[in-house]
Amino acid sequence: MIMEQKVIDYLKENRERHLKELTEFLAIPSVSALSEHNEDTERAAEWVKGQLDEIGFTEAKVMPSDGKPVVYGNYIQDENAPTVLIYGHYDVQPVDPVELWDSPPFEATVRDNKLYARGATDDKGQVFMHLKVMEAILKSEAASPVNFKVLIEGEEEIGSPTLPAFAEKHQDLLQADLIVVSDSALIEKGKPTITYGLRGLAGIQIDVKGAKGDLHSGEYGGGVMNPVHALVKILDSFKDEYNRVTVDGFYDQVPELSQEERDALAAVPFDEEKLRKELDVPEFEGENGYSYTERTSVRPTLEVNGIYGGFQGEGIKTVLPSKASAKVTCRLVPDQDPDKIVELLTEHVENNAPSSVTVEVTPFDKGKPYVTPFDHPVIATAAKAYEKVYKEETAYIRGGGSIPIVAELDRILGVPVVLMGFGLPDENLHAPNEHLHLENFDLGMETLAHYYHMLKDVEMK
Amino acid sequence: MIMEQKVIDYLKENRERHLKELTEFLAIPSVSALSEHNEDTERAAEWVKGQLDEIGFTEAKVMPSDGKPVVYGNYIQDENAPTVLIYGHYDVQPVDPVELWDSPPFEATVRDNKLYARGATDDKGQVFMHLKVMEAILKSEAASPVNFKVLIEGEEEIGSPTLPAFAEKHQDLLQADLIVVSDSALIEKGKPTITYGLRGLAGIQIDVKGAKGDLHSGEYGGGVMNPVHALVKILDSFKDEYNRVTVDGFYDQVPELSQEERDALAAVPFDEEKLRKELDVPEFEGENGYSYTERTSVRPTLEVNGIYGGFQGEGIKTVLPSKASAKVTCRLVPDQDPDKIVELLTEHVENNAPSSVTVEVTPFDKGKPYVTPFDHPVIATAAKAYEKVYKEETAYIRGGGSIPIVAELDRILGVPVVLMGFGLPDENLHAPNEHLHLENFDLGMETLAHYYHMLKDVEMK
Repeated sequence: MIMEQKVIDYLKENRERHLKELTEFLAIPSVSALSEHNEDTERAAEWVKGQLDEIGFTEAKVMPSDGKPVVYGNYIQDENAPTVLIYGHYDVQPVDPVELWDSPPFEATVRDNKLYARGATDDKGQVFMHLKVMEAILKSEAASPVNFKVLIEGEEEIGSPTLPAFAEKHQDLLQADLIVVSDSALIEKGKPTITYGLRGLAGIQIDVKGAKGDLHSGEYGGGVMNPVHALVKILDSFKDEYNRVTVDGFYDQVPELSQEERDALAAVPFDEEKLRKELDVPEFEGENGYSYTERTSVRPTLEVNGIYGGFQGEGIKTVLPSKASAKVTCRLVPDQDPDKIVELLTEHVENNAPSSVTVEVTPFDKGKPYVTPFDHPVIATAAKAYEKVYKEETAYIRGGGSIPIVAELDRILGVPVVLMGFGLPDENLHAPNEHLHLENFDLGMETLAHYYHMLKDVEMK
Repeated sequence: MIMEQKVIDYLKENRERHLKELTEFLAIPSVSALSEHNEDTERAAEWVKGQLDEIGFTEAKVMPSDGKPVVYGNYIQDENAPTVLIYGHYDVQPVDPVELWDSPPFEATVRDNKLYARGATDDKGQVFMHLKVMEAILKSEAASPVNFKVLIEGEEEIGSPTLPAFAEKHQDLLQADLIVVSDSALIEKGKPTITYGLRGLAGIQIDVKGAKGDLHSGEYGGGVMNPVHALVKILDSFKDEYNRVTVDGFYDQVPELSQEERDALAAVPFDEEKLRKELDVPEFEGENGYSYTERTSVRPTLEVNGIYGGFQGEGIKTVLPSKASAKVTCRLVPDQDPDKIVELLTEHVENNAPSSVTVEVTPFDKGKPYVTPFDHPVIATAAKAYEKVYKEETAYIRGGGSIPIVAELDRILGVPVVLMGFGLPDENLHAPNEHLHLENFDLGMETLAHYYHMLKDVEMK
């Protein structure tokens, strides 16, 4: 126990410097979706590599991939000790609409013990917590309780298109006894939470083209099909009046929920009215016959993420637009196959597109859904570490979001993945005013410090 | 006849200077829809007033209105001669998407005997033709055959919201025997065309709001209604599978077409296949049971002019958007009432909006549809003037577009409105690469010169 206390004291003593370093990391606008930020993603990779060097890693390098660079590092204390592979990502979501941010997205600002910045919770802040726990262990202890490997990528927010190939190629380098991922959230403030399942992701861009250019809606209106109308017809056909997805075969691989599962999900703490007020919506609406919790975790979804066409300025411009587009993504649950879903979506669009317009469908990168057995000893130990610090029983949930690479790493490396996150559900990830509660910054690092010490005594398979 | 020849010779001799002046006029980005161009609309008004001064008008002034300034002028030759009121507008449509223009929209460029610029045909170019014909008459003749009054406004492209009040207030100033408007097109190259009817205009902006900010589509997808889905549902409900507008009561004031009208419309020259290729659409589609010509002139329409919500950038951002909006306008035919239509549209939106989102409806400015008896002597004379120059029989058509102020001027001043335009249907008005065929610039001015001389002998009621 004395060892862990040393680590925790080190973290407290160095907290101010650590937050300054995190601010530096958050200041790099490493938006993977926008090619204009290519240099920034490279800078972010170099920054993480620099941290590993300073911490005293045996090996630390920025490695090329078929996409953005991957940061890899390791610190091998003892061949016989367990080896933990920490996965995270240094890339972030775009920041628009930037005018809705209360402080600049790349200037980390603390308000009310919350750190506001793009990436604060997803995922730079949580990656940083791992870096600092490792620093604290290596600087304050004679020997690390476990071996560390680190894999930090720069394409998670665009679906990790090239990391599977990278992991296949570098399997030896990445070999470990378990993978730890902190890229999720506590179910509510103060409640330890292990995510034992994630939804997968599949999506398409739909581009509808009418006439070769925008037309005068008086001269041509009524004569020429409006591509916005065609798009609206296609999009509206995706769901029925019960908010069920009508795409043929969409639910074929989705097993009905057992009563046990439904009971377990109903037991997860959730204050619907509180959330409704917080989000400021008149009421919740979703797939009929399922609870809010079920709809957002164990049921698949289809959402339009963006739509655009024609005149968007102030006032009115009476055009009959030439083009209209929409971005559509589905969250998938086991055993939906992303490739199959993209195929079904594409067919559905084609079957519902009027022949008076031209429609193009482009698939986005995909991710498989993932579920892991939550009785594995490394997962049970993670729950114990959480409980030691948070003094609350751990909740086991299936997350609504997608970390497509998790299923891939599980498949390629064949070891359990522990999803222990320290965000909170209302931290605006992917939205303006993303932030991280600093309470969980501190408690989370304590939890990780305990976890790594406890892992030393766990029998690895 | 000797008089008209002098005028025509003057126009030929001064053609180069005239085109230079028109280029100056077209260089002023007088976009009425965008408040950032307020100074430009004022400059455009002053420019027109300056022209009237140079021409030698008795009176020329820029007059304030409740909106953008109005240019008024008159030249009274003889109290007993007919007085022509020339109406036009100096404002233009926005230019976006500006990247689709082959030359800058405010730098007039001649290619293939066509003058390319925003406003070239709608309506600066046609206003300018009137100015130069008046200049030619006043500079080359001892006495003008008619008295001229000029009313050039700056809000036509936003529905002339304040001109009716201005016209009511200044009825005495505007009193005339007829109104001439050149803001329309020949039905095809070389074919004189008088527009004896115009569609009206009514429209709304629909703003749908979901949660207070964009949400993560994984965390909240399936739980919270997506405002894009709500908007899509509303918009899709506007039309049925036969492309009929389903808004309750929408067609109540629209009389069925008589067989005579249908026969007359079928006789208007129209090459459907040629237009289809020109516009580059796979096929035409519109209200079932009506021909292309009927659908674009004597039937009312409903078109989405623009739609937007969520992420529009490169790639994918998996948000559940907070807001989605659409701009919708209807073209109306007699006897649809724009106020009533806005009311019906608003009710329809409210009845089709899910209660899980907040929906706001804002009306745009409106215009009444208009039809005039085409056997009035001033209209018959216009046809004769056209035929003298174009050597082709005049077509009488009902235009698909809207000039809302026409019905208002008719109502307020109680005199016939002659809609004789010199554009062409494919001149991209309201779209990128707007242009004016210079053939019609020359022939149109000749036609107007003849018309004013012929009017001298027409018995006014």
